[in-house]
Amino acid sequence: MGRWAPGAGGRLQQAAYELFAERGYEQTTVADIAARAGLTERTFFRHYTDKREVFFAGQDGLVDLVVGGITDGPPLEAVVRAFEGATSFFADRRAGARVRQEVVDAHPELQERELAKLARVAAGVAAALRGRGVGEPAATLAAESGVTVFRVAFGRWVAEDADRGLDEVLRETFAELRAVVG
Amino acid sequence: MGRWAPGAGGRLQQAAYELFAERGYEQTTVADIAARAGLTERTFFRHYTDKREVFFAGQDGLVDLVVGGITDGPPLEAVVRAFEGATSFFADRRAGARVRQEVVDAHPELQERELAKLARVAAGVAAALRGRGVGEPAATLAAESGVTVFRVAFGRWVAEDADRGLDEVLRETFAELRAVVG
Repeated sequence: MGRWAPGAGGRLQQAAYELFAERGYEQTTVADIAARAGLTERTFFRHYTDKREVFFAGQDGLVDLVVGGITDGPPLEAVVRAFEGATSFFADRRAGARVRQEVVDAHPELQERELAKLARVAAGVAAALRGRGVGEPAATLAAESGVTVFRVAFGRWVAEDADRGLDEVLRETFAELRAVVG
Repeated sequence: MGRWAPGAGGRLQQAAYELFAERGYEQTTVADIAARAGLTERTFFRHYTDKREVFFAGQDGLVDLVVGGITDGPPLEAVVRAFEGATSFFADRRAGARVRQEVVDAHPELQERELAKLARVAAGVAAALRGRGVGEPAATLAAESGVTVFRVAFGRWVAEDADRGLDEVLRETFAELRAVVG
């Protein structure tokens, strides 16, 4: 699985997604996840505070990638490019992402946490843009719009059968935003 | 106060915001709010499930106004117009909105709820657009972008000293989004 399971954290996450897909989120315990990964519960709790956190653990790495990838230039273009540069993060993860999406969609408390995390991504991106001299409200508008493009593109990429890259869906979704904004 | 306090629910909300401003959110009890409004705690609980709900009660009315105000035409333009048409909702409420914003900004659990409510606004707007024949992802992109414009405009309107209408700040913010999207 390469990038997907680089260490104990990744193995636990993969095991969790497998079990969520097989028997459902509620029916899966931390003990089940640890056993499937060939690890102890203690190891699980060194990596995640609870079962829910498995869904969000990787996102800090994504935020760092995106924020670190912001360059000069037209702000929204820069944000979309930064997300594009971070898509390798998901390259081997579409199957896991699909399971994840289904579970999150079915649990309002996971959706709230997801929205809070995305708001933090947007805040980090806006700060990076301001650090490059973009004023307000342009920085916030570009950051929020970039997150919207990413979120919509990600949902389409996860749902569609076509075997194309997330980067391609991102570019296409950005073009559609441009058409919508007019 | 006119529109601001049309009935018991409005009086309780106004009393709550006054007390939050005077002594802080944590230091204000439901009993305090009811007493300030000249009503009983029982009346409070007929209108709000808890103290937190005071912040979100009016939003269903706003959602109905916005969703009901969606017309044909370019989708994002239609969404921004619908928000513009709903700005009278806030006409007398800037002082209250400012207190509200400060309390929400200081409490992550209120922020999460706010994000969840805004996500529901966006979902309702996207559904209204689809009902008018707008396809996906255009409907979702227009709805999310419209909510972003509204949120950014609202934050600016609440913060700024200039005595201008929210509708004007909305148009200006929409123009800035256009410039950012390029």
